[in-house]
Amino acid sequence: MRADINDARSGAAQVTQIRGTQAGSRRSDGGEGTGGSVAELGEFGLIAAMSARLPTGPDVLLGPGDDAAVISVPDNRVVATTDMLVEGRHFRRDWSPAYDVGRKAAAQNLADVAAMGAVPTALLVSFGAPPDLPAQWALEFADGLRDETTAAGASVAGGDVVASGPIVISITALGTLQGRAPLTRSGARSGDVVAVCGRLGWSAAGLTVLGRGFRSPRVVVEAHRRPEPPYDAGPEAAALGASALIDVSDGLLADLGHVARASGVRIDVDTSTLEVADPLRAVAAAINADPLAFVLTGGEDHALAATFGPDVELPERWQVVGRVLPAQERGQQAEGQPRPSDEPPVTVDGEVYDGPAGHDHFR
Amino acid sequence: MRADINDARSGAAQVTQIRGTQAGSRRSDGGEGTGGSVAELGEFGLIAAMSARLPTGPDVLLGPGDDAAVISVPDNRVVATTDMLVEGRHFRRDWSPAYDVGRKAAAQNLADVAAMGAVPTALLVSFGAPPDLPAQWALEFADGLRDETTAAGASVAGGDVVASGPIVISITALGTLQGRAPLTRSGARSGDVVAVCGRLGWSAAGLTVLGRGFRSPRVVVEAHRRPEPPYDAGPEAAALGASALIDVSDGLLADLGHVARASGVRIDVDTSTLEVADPLRAVAAAINADPLAFVLTGGEDHALAATFGPDVELPERWQVVGRVLPAQERGQQAEGQPRPSDEPPVTVDGEVYDGPAGHDHFR
Repeated sequence: MRADINDARSGAAQVTQIRGTQAGSRRSDGGEGTGGSVAELGEFGLIAAMSARLPTGPDVLLGPGDDAAVISVPDNRVVATTDMLVEGRHFRRDWSPAYDVGRKAAAQNLADVAAMGAVPTALLVSFGAPPDLPAQWALEFADGLRDETTAAGASVAGGDVVASGPIVISITALGTLQGRAPLTRSGARSGDVVAVCGRLGWSAAGLTVLGRGFRSPRVVVEAHRRPEPPYDAGPEAAALGASALIDVSDGLLADLGHVARASGVRIDVDTSTLEVADPLRAVAAAINADPLAFVLTGGEDHALAATFGPDVELPERWQVVGRVLPAQERGQQAEGQPRPSDEPPVTVDGEVYDGPAGHDHFR
Repeated sequence: MRADINDARSGAAQVTQIRGTQAGSRRSDGGEGTGGSVAELGEFGLIAAMSARLPTGPDVLLGPGDDAAVISVPDNRVVATTDMLVEGRHFRRDWSPAYDVGRKAAAQNLADVAAMGAVPTALLVSFGAPPDLPAQWALEFADGLRDETTAAGASVAGGDVVASGPIVISITALGTLQGRAPLTRSGARSGDVVAVCGRLGWSAAGLTVLGRGFRSPRVVVEAHRRPEPPYDAGPEAAALGASALIDVSDGLLADLGHVARASGVRIDVDTSTLEVADPLRAVAAAINADPLAFVLTGGEDHALAATFGPDVELPERWQVVGRVLPAQERGQQAEGQPRPSDEPPVTVDGEVYDGPAGHDHFR
């Protein structure tokens, strides 16, 4: 809701081009119709129509419509995380329906809150849309946001709508620790076990299928379009006394690497404990690849990976997949070996993994 | 930090293209050099280099580097607002240096926190960058973010970096009410005075100058590039007992329209009280326009506009510019007049203003 520099491009544009009805009055322009583009609906009409689909929950003390929202934070500490999705980079309109883009955009932020051992309370959503985007796309996106946010026990507290070239979605998720300490990446200790709750590799398999122009196996395509993070496993891990917790967004090895580095330990993954589901085997067979690569390196399923003391009794949905080892000591190294800081802190069945690894957005 | 769908475009891309060093290890790639592009620095190198320029303040209990940040909120309520800026829409690299884009992006979000009568505590920043963007641009942008955030008494708690076509910046600002009630748009009462703290029309005049290919008067160009919101005037208005408060981002008439509608009142602006500074007169004369149009309709200076009871003694920096009137009653209307809901709720010297008005991003 600020001036657009394009207003200034031609002549006395500041005084002519921004002419129009007073801001806000377009809410009653009949903009509730959804057959047209977001430009036809107008900025304020779009905000009104999206907001109407996003009821606020009890944690939102003051919702959309003012300069800022006010959200309840019971224990004087708010957990906050943000992620941006760019059309053509993180999603494609021909690969995912708007509703699923909304669910996924919400899910990846809500999962980051859960990965602190916290409970999500509210989202703020910035939505950049090309003016010719069908308004229906924006409204179905809002429906997806709403349903995923509700599933996590939160709601949408506010946002911003701007014109953009590609669709750009930026979400900030807030949450509460309910009096607990935050569960960081840095608390893993030698002797701990590594356990995972949630799926691994399904989204990556789905992405591979879509990248080849196919739509099946449908279960992996659906998993790519709409991850199902186990939100309540975050607070559960905290209650079980987890020493570290992370959201598996980059891939199991990459994310365990973050934990190992932050904690100053090594981690070994035992592949005999990893379930490789049939649909992943089918996709891997079709492209002549190792299905285990999906499980070890596929991101975006938003499983949670935690480390626990060796004696913790874990609920069934937490699968032990590895163990935490002491950092390699220099004394153990043979002459001419790489320096410890260059060694991968995560091994697979005791060996350096030589398959594909993590992701860098700019490479 | 998620998979990029472009990884899937060619063949078994998921298993081949994301090959690389383990995520995170690029921090030691010598990526601190800033002569190259963000792609050469790499995602993790860029995050590390930007984070190094963004020290966290005392309100940030856990800063960048984990799944989420943890921020102190002393009174169990967090104020939260978000805005997105798209290159070519909200700023141009040839019109504003990176440092100023950083300051402005922070300022417009921090001002929204102040406009609730709150004190800003922390920002979360999502940064979408074209891979060929000079890394130096990103670092100077971070410097601007830092300086504006520090000026407002806050710091940057976390963020996200992704690849994008145009530069896209999405910021969420958090703040604390320090035990006070939030100052909304809906509390203005008939009989109140309307007062403004901060500049009006300077940014719009600067935008007009830039749009015509000029760089002077320099003071208005600087005002466009780097607004100076009076952050502490927000909590001050609350302490003075303001009945409503808003950030002037769309323009005085448009934003007072938001207050009038939300409060169910009318507002009349008295132009004899409005200062029209010499640089604004100079720009208006050059384009044969009314300089008052800048003051009444120019956005993005992020002044604060408040309503106060008629007997409040205001500090000198608050300029009384109008008064709050009762909503027009139907009984007062002549036959055939427009319905009250269609009437502009803000008048200028008692008349409907027929100059340019607010801004709609999609029109």
